[in-house]
Amino acid sequence: MWTPPLGRDLVLTHDVIAAGIHYLPGDPPSDVAWKLLAANLSDLGAMGAAPVGILLALGLSAGEDGAWRAAFTDGLGRALGHFGVALWGGDTVTGLAAAVLGLTAIGTVDPGGALGRSGAAPGDEIWVSGTIGDAGLGLAIARGDAPPDRVLLNRFRRPEPRLALGQALAGTATACLDVSDGLLIDADRLARASGVALAIDLASLPVSPAAAARVTADDAGRLGLATAGDDYELLFTVPPGADVAGLAGSVRVTRIGAVTAGLGVVALGKAGDVTPGRLGWEH
Amino acid sequence: MWTPPLGRDLVLTHDVIAAGIHYLPGDPPSDVAWKLLAANLSDLGAMGAAPVGILLALGLSAGEDGAWRAAFTDGLGRALGHFGVALWGGDTVTGLAAAVLGLTAIGTVDPGGALGRSGAAPGDEIWVSGTIGDAGLGLAIARGDAPPDRVLLNRFRRPEPRLALGQALAGTATACLDVSDGLLIDADRLARASGVALAIDLASLPVSPAAAARVTADDAGRLGLATAGDDYELLFTVPPGADVAGLAGSVRVTRIGAVTAGLGVVALGKAGDVTPGRLGWEH
Repeated sequence: MWTPPLGRDLVLTHDVIAAGIHYLPGDPPSDVAWKLLAANLSDLGAMGAAPVGILLALGLSAGEDGAWRAAFTDGLGRALGHFGVALWGGDTVTGLAAAVLGLTAIGTVDPGGALGRSGAAPGDEIWVSGTIGDAGLGLAIARGDAPPDRVLLNRFRRPEPRLALGQALAGTATACLDVSDGLLIDADRLARASGVALAIDLASLPVSPAAAARVTADDAGRLGLATAGDDYELLFTVPPGADVAGLAGSVRVTRIGAVTAGLGVVALGKAGDVTPGRLGWEH
Repeated sequence: MWTPPLGRDLVLTHDVIAAGIHYLPGDPPSDVAWKLLAANLSDLGAMGAAPVGILLALGLSAGEDGAWRAAFTDGLGRALGHFGVALWGGDTVTGLAAAVLGLTAIGTVDPGGALGRSGAAPGDEIWVSGTIGDAGLGLAIARGDAPPDRVLLNRFRRPEPRLALGQALAGTATACLDVSDGLLIDADRLARASGVALAIDLASLPVSPAAAARVTADDAGRLGLATAGDDYELLFTVPPGADVAGLAGSVRVTRIGAVTAGLGVVALGKAGDVTPGRLGWEH
């Protein structure tokens, strides 16, 4: 039972992650707990909300033994403490063929202040936080398909939800979402929700040093990063000239394109429109 | 985004049902949708809450084809309309080995008025709504292990959450829960949460005519009904002499025992304590 704060609206989100689809069965349980929480808090961040509490839905298989469950619970507790969020309840079922983990996160926003996906207008600038594509390279490392790199692996296993940035953007950004399935596919969703086109300049994408060491700097390399997913960075649009860097504080933000008339995402490379057929993950 | 009503507290619940565990893969999709919603609304009812909105978490396998999904969505929409509850959002993942369906339900209660499990005291009366054991017989029918009976099958597939009764009991009942895993195991949970014993008189159990036609009227028959689960009836305790029938209105309510000192559930038969080793389902 919870008395909601006076003068705040509520937002709720529920994301599911499944073993073998969204994480690997061999991932450390504490990292799985972190990612389940972070993915949902990232959704709240994209709405400009401050998280308050969660409900947990654990669907477990025989693969999650007592040691796994203890490590998961311990890791979740530490993650909740890190973000200052309370566990309010939930449900556990066992006997599944593979684990399916759901989490409902509840947050608050100023009345009418929640960020949505549908307000982008032609002329707006397109910005993204952090760097793009690291988590996709981290997934390849977790799978054993690429040489180890702690920074990239952590970007896959322990994403940082952009809660402070989302709250700072409320009232300024015209549309916002978090990049979970790939920059291009999520940009396409924002574009279609707003009834506009998002023209993204591949050369302007923010790339980490660790990613730059592994990926070519040409259009093909950039398209790989922009369709990799699991970034949990914020993609947002603002009216021209908005002081995004001032709002972002210590969080890196990069302008990556412009909103135009049309519908959907356009990836602009050296030779013009190089939008690929596959824009990202469709789970 | 939702503005919570002034002067009401919120309660939230999340229940998961899995194909092959909580329902049968061959169950009609509209009935699966009904049961997913009803099971969660039943939780809210047991807290004395009025439901407002839900989030849906669909984990689907290849077995849920386009026709299944359309029928599920249609059935869920009708069920939501029946209960006057809004769909606020959720998540869908595909590619699972078998379907895992989660639902978060949000409800409101008067400040401080939510019913819990921990307030039962020695001397309180134990009551239950409706009839017990029908759904277990319905499960046997759904599995093809027993001859058809539409009433019993419906009690398994389309339970009726006791929302009005739960709200009426707020302020009177000392403890309340909904019977989902079996009357005895859920009574045991209420007893342990309250630090008391629940002595249940098997002869007093409310049994439907359809169930009475299939089950012997002795202790063994009653124990079968009391450990069958899926009833989604309210089990609650009240101070002696409370006007339960008056509060319940048109809902059948039956006094089935008394709270005593001790810890846990005790099933009383013709020969005294006949509490079985298995009290119900443990998923």
